[in-house]
Order: sequence, then C-alpha cells, then structure tokens
Amino acid sequence: MPRYRLDIEYDGGPYKGFQSQQNGPSVQDAIEAAIEKFCGQQVRIAAAGRTDTGVHATGQVIHVDLDKAWPPRTVAEAINAHLVPEPITVLKAEPVDDDWHARFSATGRRYLYRIVHGRNAPALERGRVWWIKKRLDVMAMTEAAKALVGRHDFTTFRDAQCQAQSPVKTLDIAEVTEAGEHGVELRFAARSFLHRQVRSMTGSLVEVGLGRWSVEDFAEAMTAADRTRCGTVAPPEGLYLTGVAYD
Amino acid sequence: MPRYRLDIEYDGGPYKGFQSQQNGPSVQDAIEAAIEKFCGQQVRIAAAGRTDTGVHATGQVIHVDLDKAWPPRTVAEAINAHLVPEPITVLKAEPVDDDWHARFSATGRRYLYRIVHGRNAPALERGRVWWIKKRLDVMAMTEAAKALVGRHDFTTFRDAQCQAQSPVKTLDIAEVTEAGEHGVELRFAARSFLHRQVRSMTGSLVEVGLGRWSVEDFAEAMTAADRTRCGTVAPPEGLYLTGVAYD
Repeated sequence: MPRYRLDIEYDGGPYKGFQSQQNGPSVQDAIEAAIEKFCGQQVRIAAAGRTDTGVHATGQVIHVDLDKAWPPRTVAEAINAHLVPEPITVLKAEPVDDDWHARFSATGRRYLYRIVHGRNAPALERGRVWWIKKRLDVMAMTEAAKALVGRHDFTTFRDAQCQAQSPVKTLDIAEVTEAGEHGVELRFAARSFLHRQVRSMTGSLVEVGLGRWSVEDFAEAMTAADRTRCGTVAPPEGLYLTGVAYD
Repeated sequence: MPRYRLDIEYDGGPYKGFQSQQNGPSVQDAIEAAIEKFCGQQVRIAAAGRTDTGVHATGQVIHVDLDKAWPPRTVAEAINAHLVPEPITVLKAEPVDDDWHARFSATGRRYLYRIVHGRNAPALERGRVWWIKKRLDVMAMTEAAKALVGRHDFTTFRDAQCQAQSPVKTLDIAEVTEAGEHGVELRFAARSFLHRQVRSMTGSLVEVGLGRWSVEDFAEAMTAADRTRCGTVAPPEGLYLTGVAYD
C-alpha cells in the first residue's frame, strides 16, 4: 500500500483544529473527504502537529496510505481539486517508505507567532495576527525569550489538558524580531511542544512587552514550573505551524 | 466646519469598490454609515483613489467635514468602533484646512500588485494575491516594466470606461521585484492613473513573465496606444492602493 507524505497549508480560521471531532469542521475531515472523492478510499490521515482551533499552518505534514501507486503530482492535484473551496492546499506530495510516519518520524517542529501592535485594528490581516493596540517593547521581549532556550520544565506554559508524559522539553529556538513598523514575529523550534506551549510562552512574553512583567519576572514565572504563573494565553489567530523536520 | 483627513485601510473583497452605488455595498457607504452613528451627521466623503470592486487599500486617504471640532483621536476611534465588523480601519485622523481636498490636493498615488506563482493555490493568501500556477520569468518582467516609466500615451492600458480627458500620463515608478520564493511584487507611482491602468499594465507584464510576449512585444503594445493590444487584465484581488502623496 503506497504511502505518501503530503505538505499542507491551511487557514485555521474556519476549523475546530486539525483533528477530526464531533463538534465542528476539522482540517482532517476536509482532507479525508477530498481523498475519498479522488480515489474512493476511506482513509485516516496522520499529522505531524495537531493544531488547535483557529491555528494556521504553512508547513503541516501528513501521511496517507493509498491503494494505488499514483504519480505524486496527481495525488496533490486531485486532492486540491476536491478541496475547493476549503482554504486548504496540498503544496507537495511524495512517496515515502511504509515505516515513515508524519508524526512519529518527525524530529522537529517550527512555529511562527505574528503580532501587530501600536496601531488601530488591522483590516487586511484580521484573523492572521494577534492585534495589540498598545506598542510593545520588542527589545524586552527579545531579552526575556532567551530564558526559554534549552532544556526546562515548561509546566508554566503547559495547558491543563496536556497529555504529554513529561513537562520537560528542549527548546532549540525562541526568537522575537521586529517585522516592519508595527509587526512582531516570534519563532520557536523544538523536537516537540506541550499543548498550548507556544501560545502560553507568547502570551507571557507579551506581558513583558506591555511592561506588566520585567524580564526577571518572566524567567521566574518559567522556573516556578507553575501553571498559575502563566500570562494571558495568546489567541490562536496569530499562530502558524511553519515546518516539520525529519532526519 | 472642521475638515479631517482620514487615512484608511480596507479589505476590498466584500465591496463593489470604494464609491457608493446602487448594486452593492461600498467602502464609502460603510464609512459614511459609521460617521453618522458616531456624530449623527449625514456626510459625503471624498477619496484620493476610487478603487474598483475587490481592490484593497493600505493607504487610502479621504476627507470629511464634521460639525464639531472633535479631537482627531476621538474621530478615528469612534468611526472604528462603529465600523465593526466591516474590514475597514481608520489608521489616523488629522485636522486639515478647509481648502484641502483628499482627491484634488493629491500629487501622487502609489499602488502595489502582489502575485504568487509557481506553486499550488495559496490557502492563507487567498483573496490577497493573484495566483498564477506557472512560474513567471521575473527578470523579463523587470526588464519590460522599464518601458513604462516616463510620459506616455497609455491608451493600451486604459479601460474603455475611463473618463480621463487625456490618455497621457507620467509614470514615476514601475518596478517588479521578487518577494520570497513564490512572490512577485509590482510597484507603480504616478500623479494619477487611468481607469484600470495598474491592472492592465500588470496583466500585460504577466504575458511577458509567462513567455507569451517578449520584452519587445510589451514595448510595442504600449507604444501602439491601442486598447486591443492590452494583455489579460489582472484580477482585482492582488491590487492595493498603498499611499497618496500631498505637497
């Protein structure tokens, strides 16, 4: 049974997250429906990152087993044709070994969080960024983010629903950069993340940007390993799963 | 009667253009309705550029006469509050002399046209860019665009409905640049433009990018000053009015 890796982009706005569920449309359901229309197969797809309600992806990776060895280009084009008008696109399809797994073979995930600050509400980027009316101190956020890099107990930045066995993770990248006059971009990379970790870290860094927390307050909140010390969790619309690494 | 200049941003997607009209919602109607809700006045606003159906703006400029000398910040905030949920934002309000006119005092307009090419359909930038599946020859487009700069008879790039007295305009900037792996950005600046001129020039430059026209074909189409020589007119969703200049 030929297995295909699919690289996927989507607007998370209309979906109750990636994963199929009872109470609303999911990215997974939409893709599985398109695959069934294409080749008649009822499949279950597996994804590298199970993005939450409203979270976007420019580099999600999934795999699917098809009955027939279609040319990869045909797989991408046919699924895309049947995805219309959903805001989901297969960027690329490629055959992989049948022991390759989109989730379990992944060795890294990258996320981008986009903020627009210090101006009135964005009309064109609505639903694509977290809008913060006040101006943020980006330098302070950049400084605070340094504490995140490395191996830590991230309990402070872990959602109560998180099912990971351990709150200890190693963060490879935690960067805060200016993007134009009113933009801030936060980039995170790790082998894996806890549930809502990126939004929890981002919201807490924004506490620093707003001057409510000092850089030291941020570091202390993290080392406390106490969920009640987390800042306001950032909303989903600014978050993008941008890439997945494999060995 | 205090006059205010308002700098405006909008997603043109839901509107039948800037200007008020019978057959659908317009940006003008939405702003005028918000002003009436704010201060009870029925006003007519004037804009620097009357963008077409589906065309966006990040730097549109309008003016409005109000009965009372409100603080500029109050004007912007109150109109924005009443604009919700329309994808229109007043970026800034400032008092101007009563002989200052958003349209007639303007000495320059700038437009950006955004293309995504050489990949599958964008899911996140849908309605924000012209998607062209084939890969464009951006170098050839850059070269062809040089012919546009200066004073020319732009009849080839003028819509049949254009009401300008003369087809002769002076183009100050016509630039084509790459924007990432799959993006092309076209920038144009002139004192004023003919109706659909930017979309006509862009569509014709894309003929060059697709290899259907040579750089010489493009220059000849322009100098022919013949509307039948125009390429496919670019769709509205990639076009942005980015700024208006005043002396």
